[in-house]
Amino acid sequence: MASKMVYSFGGPKTDGNGGMRNLLGGKGANLAEMAKIGLPVPAGFTITTEVCTAFYESGKQFPPNLKKDVEAALAGVEKQMGAKFGSSENPLLVSCRSGARVSMPGMMDTVLNIGLNDKTLAGLIAKTGNPRFAYDSYRRFVAMYGDVVMGIKDAMKVSHDPFHQLLDKAKETKGYNLDTQMTVEDLKDLVAAYKKLYKDVFRKPFPEDPMEQLWGAIGAVFDSWMIPRAKDYRSLNHIPEDWGTAVNVQAMVFGNMGDDSATGVAFSRDPATGENYFYGEYLVNAQGEDVVAGIRTPNPINRARPLPAGVKVSLADEMPELYKELDDVRIALEKHYHDMQDIEFTIQQGKLYMLQCRNGKRTGHAAVKIAVDQVKEKLITKQEAILRFEPDHLVQVLLPFFDKNSDEFKKASPVASGLPASPGAAVGQAFFSAADAEAQAKNGKKVILVRQETSPEDIKGMAAAQGILTSRGGATSHAAVVARGMGRPCIVGAAIDVDHDKKCFSVGQLVVKEGDFISLDGAAGKVYKAALPAKNIELPPEFSTFMGWVDDEMKMKVRTNADTPFDAKVARDYGAAGIGLCRTEHMFFMSDRIDHFRKMILADNLEERKKALAAILPMQREDFYEIFKAMDGLPVTIRTLDPPLHEFLPHTEREIADLAKKFHLKAEDVKSRINALHEQNPMLGLRGCRLGILYPEITEMQARAIFEAARKAAAEGVTVLPEIMIPLIGTEKEFALQKKVVDDVAKEIFGSSGKKVDYLVGTMIELPRAALVADKVVGAGAQFFSFGTNDLTQTTFGLSRDDSGMFLPQYVDELRIWTKDPFVTIDTEGMGQLMEIGVARGRKMDRQLKVGICGEHGGDPDSVKFCYSQGFDYVSCSPHRVPVARLAAAQAALQMKAAKTSGKGADKAAAQKAPARTLRPASRGVGRPAAKAGKNDKWKKELAVKLVQDIAPMTKESVGALKRGTAKTKKAGRPKK
Amino acid sequence: MASKMVYSFGGPKTDGNGGMRNLLGGKGANLAEMAKIGLPVPAGFTITTEVCTAFYESGKQFPPNLKKDVEAALAGVEKQMGAKFGSSENPLLVSCRSGARVSMPGMMDTVLNIGLNDKTLAGLIAKTGNPRFAYDSYRRFVAMYGDVVMGIKDAMKVSHDPFHQLLDKAKETKGYNLDTQMTVEDLKDLVAAYKKLYKDVFRKPFPEDPMEQLWGAIGAVFDSWMIPRAKDYRSLNHIPEDWGTAVNVQAMVFGNMGDDSATGVAFSRDPATGENYFYGEYLVNAQGEDVVAGIRTPNPINRARPLPAGVKVSLADEMPELYKELDDVRIALEKHYHDMQDIEFTIQQGKLYMLQCRNGKRTGHAAVKIAVDQVKEKLITKQEAILRFEPDHLVQVLLPFFDKNSDEFKKASPVASGLPASPGAAVGQAFFSAADAEAQAKNGKKVILVRQETSPEDIKGMAAAQGILTSRGGATSHAAVVARGMGRPCIVGAAIDVDHDKKCFSVGQLVVKEGDFISLDGAAGKVYKAALPAKNIELPPEFSTFMGWVDDEMKMKVRTNADTPFDAKVARDYGAAGIGLCRTEHMFFMSDRIDHFRKMILADNLEERKKALAAILPMQREDFYEIFKAMDGLPVTIRTLDPPLHEFLPHTEREIADLAKKFHLKAEDVKSRINALHEQNPMLGLRGCRLGILYPEITEMQARAIFEAARKAAAEGVTVLPEIMIPLIGTEKEFALQKKVVDDVAKEIFGSSGKKVDYLVGTMIELPRAALVADKVVGAGAQFFSFGTNDLTQTTFGLSRDDSGMFLPQYVDELRIWTKDPFVTIDTEGMGQLMEIGVARGRKMDRQLKVGICGEHGGDPDSVKFCYSQGFDYVSCSPHRVPVARLAAAQAALQMKAAKTSGKGADKAAAQKAPARTLRPASRGVGRPAAKAGKNDKWKKELAVKLVQDIAPMTKESVGALKRGTAKTKKAGRPKK
Repeated sequence: MASKMVYSFGGPKTDGNGGMRNLLGGKGANLAEMAKIGLPVPAGFTITTEVCTAFYESGKQFPPNLKKDVEAALAGVEKQMGAKFGSSENPLLVSCRSGARVSMPGMMDTVLNIGLNDKTLAGLIAKTGNPRFAYDSYRRFVAMYGDVVMGIKDAMKVSHDPFHQLLDKAKETKGYNLDTQMTVEDLKDLVAAYKKLYKDVFRKPFPEDPMEQLWGAIGAVFDSWMIPRAKDYRSLNHIPEDWGTAVNVQAMVFGNMGDDSATGVAFSRDPATGENYFYGEYLVNAQGEDVVAGIRTPNPINRARPLPAGVKVSLADEMPELYKELDDVRIALEKHYHDMQDIEFTIQQGKLYMLQCRNGKRTGHAAVKIAVDQVKEKLITKQEAILRFEPDHLVQVLLPFFDKNSDEFKKASPVASGLPASPGAAVGQAFFSAADAEAQAKNGKKVILVRQETSPEDIKGMAAAQGILTSRGGATSHAAVVARGMGRPCIVGAAIDVDHDKKCFSVGQLVVKEGDFISLDGAAGKVYKAALPAKNIELPPEFSTFMGWVDDEMKMKVRTNADTPFDAKVARDYGAAGIGLCRTEHMFFMSDRIDHFRKMILADNLEERKKALAAILPMQREDFYEIFKAMDGLPVTIRTLDPPLHEFLPHTEREIADLAKKFHLKAEDVKSRINALHEQNPMLGLRGCRLGILYPEITEMQARAIFEAARKAAAEGVTVLPEIMIPLIGTEKEFALQKKVVDDVAKEIFGSSGKKVDYLVGTMIELPRAALVADKVVGAGAQFFSFGTNDLTQTTFGLSRDDSGMFLPQYVDELRIWTKDPFVTIDTEGMGQLMEIGVARGRKMDRQLKVGICGEHGGDPDSVKFCYSQGFDYVSCSPHRVPVARLAAAQAALQMKAAKTSGKGADKAAAQKAPARTLRPASRGVGRPAAKAGKNDKWKKELAVKLVQDIAPMTKESVGALKRGTAKTKKAGRPKK
Repeated sequence: MASKMVYSFGGPKTDGNGGMRNLLGGKGANLAEMAKIGLPVPAGFTITTEVCTAFYESGKQFPPNLKKDVEAALAGVEKQMGAKFGSSENPLLVSCRSGARVSMPGMMDTVLNIGLNDKTLAGLIAKTGNPRFAYDSYRRFVAMYGDVVMGIKDAMKVSHDPFHQLLDKAKETKGYNLDTQMTVEDLKDLVAAYKKLYKDVFRKPFPEDPMEQLWGAIGAVFDSWMIPRAKDYRSLNHIPEDWGTAVNVQAMVFGNMGDDSATGVAFSRDPATGENYFYGEYLVNAQGEDVVAGIRTPNPINRARPLPAGVKVSLADEMPELYKELDDVRIALEKHYHDMQDIEFTIQQGKLYMLQCRNGKRTGHAAVKIAVDQVKEKLITKQEAILRFEPDHLVQVLLPFFDKNSDEFKKASPVASGLPASPGAAVGQAFFSAADAEAQAKNGKKVILVRQETSPEDIKGMAAAQGILTSRGGATSHAAVVARGMGRPCIVGAAIDVDHDKKCFSVGQLVVKEGDFISLDGAAGKVYKAALPAKNIELPPEFSTFMGWVDDEMKMKVRTNADTPFDAKVARDYGAAGIGLCRTEHMFFMSDRIDHFRKMILADNLEERKKALAAILPMQREDFYEIFKAMDGLPVTIRTLDPPLHEFLPHTEREIADLAKKFHLKAEDVKSRINALHEQNPMLGLRGCRLGILYPEITEMQARAIFEAARKAAAEGVTVLPEIMIPLIGTEKEFALQKKVVDDVAKEIFGSSGKKVDYLVGTMIELPRAALVADKVVGAGAQFFSFGTNDLTQTTFGLSRDDSGMFLPQYVDELRIWTKDPFVTIDTEGMGQLMEIGVARGRKMDRQLKVGICGEHGGDPDSVKFCYSQGFDYVSCSPHRVPVARLAAAQAALQMKAAKTSGKGADKAAAQKAPARTLRPASRGVGRPAAKAGKNDKWKKELAVKLVQDIAPMTKESVGALKRGTAKTKKAGRPKK
């Protein structure tokens, strides 16, 4: 051990800084950084990860000089804290915590209150004047030491905590229910009992020597690096064993040492409104948990806002100098971290200590205001404001939300939860069929549609509802996709039992009947049996300023998935640069059309099928015409028919009988046709281009509707930019066959009219095979790619989005097999490779190839960033997600730019290879910027991984580099949330 | 046009050869090769593809000197044929055919009988003595010329052939039904009518000048390169436009020019038995079509076998010199092509002409005998015998087959057809439930099981049946997979309507009832309503000699998919080197177990589930014990539970009620559990390792059964080599979690017994994501990969094997979107990439990683070859496919070796990089040969593509090179079948 083994912080000197994560661990580096910028953190020191490695290499021996170095550092802590480790008058107590390079939550051990013994206890009582607190701390310390350091459970071969059993026994004897009922005398007895148990088991008394305690704790933390649960965690998370853990020893401070002590929490700005004043609460002579517990009501720290009724004093009044010091900290913090901070502080006997600071949580409205204000204050640049803006905050301002401060909300507890499929707050009366929902909404009621699952026939009922709740399906089930498209809050796969016949749902004994009021918190996936107060969308005045900055930085387009002229208009208002996906099948579901479509399906010969299609043609044409008008000057991507045909047919005996009657068919024949269309795995069956290939007349009709609508709109002066998209291509021949059908129709229509509308024909890349042969698909004439990441996720993972609910929660939440639901955020590690392959091969054939994404991922910020890193031209998402995607696109562009100018070795090298991207005009035919997709695959991938890891806002340094345009070593000194 | 434009063949000199395919087209090169080796082909010449290119480059002008060159070549043809083009006494007629570099069947034009006019017609009549033939030829020529050369349909703007209409009118007038009823006079009139129509349309008379006819035909062939259907075909098949087509002009010969003329077909050995004598038939004064048509009965060409009753004479008797010449041709042919040849010949006025020769079709038995005989005759080497052996011939000798020469078979016509799921001939009475089939078979009846589809519960009935017929499912449906495993002929997805209630199936009006005899031709997918005569398996005496040679050349192991001790034994007899896939779920379906398994599924808590599993444990243990014994010394790969649980549960109301009663449960509860397990797309749902992860107790029980069985067998001296395989892995964490369960059980069992059995834990690679992260899966501890290509095909294509029947026939047969059913033969172009990625990444982490395949593709020869090219250690297939896979493995090894020594530029370079492969001993731990998978990806892929394209037997040259071990330019002069 030649190098430095112990790094002090918070005392006379601080040796480390935030960039020394590998050596000091995450926690140690963070503590050093806080001390470095002048925050009064309780003093302490970090034993390096190298010591841990040496400890194991030498058969669990501490290096020879460590003892000396620790003692020296401890002396510094004593000096700084004005207390002495082991002193009976003025005892210093310390904590001992693990801290690895990357967080391994709960995997390793911690020991608190080290230094307590019978002698120092007296000092603690004297200092705090609170014997109960002192004894309670003592008993906890004995138990923690016995468990963590000595391993009492292993020694006794039991699985439960024997100390806790003694506590339970004591309470039972006294007839107490709560720990808080224990008196000082009770606790005294308990400490004695704990010590006796310790002695009985280990055949030696509990160590009174504080240094012995400390070394025991340090050894225990090192030992905990190798306990099975930590090893398993590392092996699953690919954390090398030789990284080791650091050990942090830090002085403990107490806000309950009398009336010159206090504790509190504060925000550097108002987290609810974003207003720029120092906002916070404190309690004199209290511990942090007292503020949180709500037994005593804390006071405001100042009079920036009128004091609440009954409150007479603020911290600024009581301890003006300390308040001034705290306010200085506030200013220093915003200067250092460039963001609103959330602070925990303790005043111990007239001295201020910062226990924690981190970026403060805030409402969406506050986030917008703070961002714009801080730019105006020149505290941050517009770019910083964009980079650190959390996409969820935009979602919040764009959707209704519950008033979480209302008494009703605070009192309410959810009766069920499910997958949060579409965010927002919805309140209304429960109805159990689309027809009922629609009818009741027409009567002026606010309704929530509750179904086992939804199908395309429920669309009108969904549109009429405030929100949608289902008991089945996953994040990309029909209900989820459609609800997001409509901007309706939605919870799917909820743990409720829906009975459509009885028009109710139940959760255990609780029954919710038709007409009962319920509330859905779409973002949290919580269901309440009450009408909770919700706030409607109310954009903060700073919103448009902020989005204007976003647009200035965006280098990738954001389109929308819209199937109706109305959706198209909404999306355009939200800033969509075109339609990336218009699902023609949704048009078929309207009641005046579905019968024609059903006739088409039930036709048993070409002629009848064509007759039915001819009846649909004018309707589709009219839809397209209206959409083209709404999107004047912007591209409109229309996908040909995609879903399995049987989705359009009725399923119950009764519906079948009705249909047969209407069509003058035998019910048996209808049933037999439905059976013939039945598939074991419809997701992998006769759908997508397979339909158009077997029944070219369908594609032909759709192409005709598109081109006739385009001709009509163009004749009226509308700039029409149709892009026709063939779904579920697996081979280039499929594409070539369908393109020919489309081109032939175009030739026929424009040939005879003389007026030509330019159009593109492209394809979805939504099967692994399509990505693998993407070059051939372009060779067969594809003019653009749109990644259908819903299907691509399904096939890459072999995972049906409808069925994944059976194990997805365990996979994501419990086992962490997937860190995120792959239907929500692109799996960059696996599926991302296929996307990269697809783009590279496609652009190998056509460097101008337009590439986009139209899966549900198009509205997910992480996924948007990945798409940018892969050189996509656009992402497409639900209308209500367009602003979020715009933000993510701008963030991605800024991050890549910053990576280019920052000094981080590999990142920099990679990013400097990245071509400058420029925004392309809306019309096609304009050259792609200098992107050389084929050659730059590697950097893109590296950068993509980086981007996704680094979705938290950027550090000051890299943003600084961005501003100055100069390279500078990036420091990681900023506390992460 | 500096280079030679016209290449003569069959005359005094032959300019080209079989290697000049690019210049002369396939047909031209082939004709030259035949002439070159001394076959008397009718003389002719080829105008090169370069002329075609020049023709288009110069605006459809013939190059200046072409006329001269053609005339010179034509003079050579006249000289050789002893006839004169345009002569009225001794006219030479020629044909004019297209011939591109690669075959474009039916895409371009042909003109026959060029040179016929009113004058030369007289000569033809004189030479043939057959005015009817002459006039019929003439009318056909006029019509063909008018259509092909002049484009009469376009000129008249009609879609039907106007000449044919005239023929129809003439027949109608005369009251004829058949063309053959037309008399000479009728035909004379028709020629006149044709010529009049020609003149009316084109305003000029039909050209009498033979040279004008010839140039018209040459121009028409060139023109046909650019007709839309040819362009479409090229664009779909990626054939460059600038390749152009060659034009072949060849003398026509006639076997009906009198008694010194004849025509016949022959084989160089007996194609039915393989015996080495000259086998053939001929007719004097006849055309080839007369032999085929069967109006006159042809005579044998010699007396090698007794003449049939009533036949007095053979060709050897009638024309001994010509027979001698033909026999010399036979010997020359076998020497040149090293294989039994199928010959078409014509004798025109005492002169022998070879019209065609190609490798002769033969029975499986003949194939084996010919191969072994030719090696003994030193005509070919063992390696050549192996290389050119068709895998289907092995299938034939290993399975019962219909006597296709029997009158019954000849008379029978199939009543329905379906997908050929498992080859072989099956004859029996139709039964419509597994129970009925089983019962009737016990009564001694031969039964065919007919079902809409089969499920695992039908296994006993399937085993009892001679064959299986279903109306649903694809090549890898349950019925297909199980039937192949059992070696039962099987047809799936047949176009029949199965009514289980009425116990019958119907095809249109035809109804097949219970007990009716039917016959299945499994290889052809044909169903007959009759008991056709079938021959049982009878291995030819040369079989074991041949398979011995195969084993000497094989460098990759062949394992088997076997779920029972019986299957394991059968496979071992067929030469299996271990079990590559033992599906544990099949064991659960036996009637004494399924109830325990169902109890496990229906359990609603861990304890009950464990109880049910404990009841299954001893049964599984016993199975594994028997399998280990049967496979003493060979590895046994056991897959943990894979299918969705609901496959094990009953589905009808009645079955559910029965089960509920048996288990003392409420039917409603059982139904609700079944509903809870219902999935939209079970193939993508809760199955594979997802089951073992949600219910680790299942994996634990299976591991326990395996290890306890292994311990028991090992204690008895059996060498046990278990390899435990985790299915449907998509992430390394899934694998790690399941491996831990297995390892923990092993530790427990072997820890306590002291006897340790080595085992491996590996994974299926059957999801695209698994292939993409294969390195990480190895990093998580996977010790082998087995590619599950059934599932990998499903997910790569987004294609359910159960549902693909709805469009697979159109995709494969009509539209040629897939050249082969991807469930039968590995899609090397798409899925092959994922396999390559998986192998490369897996071996990057562990160069010794054992890699195999256990999908249905493991028994498909092309797929076996692909696996070899990718460096697989083994393939695994159904027991009955093991010999076929062994053959394919040997062929692949020889082909790769040959590619290394042959002189073909890229191939050679690629193959020379290939490491020498050696067979690995059966036990693990032995080093892999020098294969460097990661580095050699490129050559492997190239070679793989080559191998798959080149599955036809090798050319003489490359085999020659193999023998001599020297590099030599490979000639492509051999006619391909």
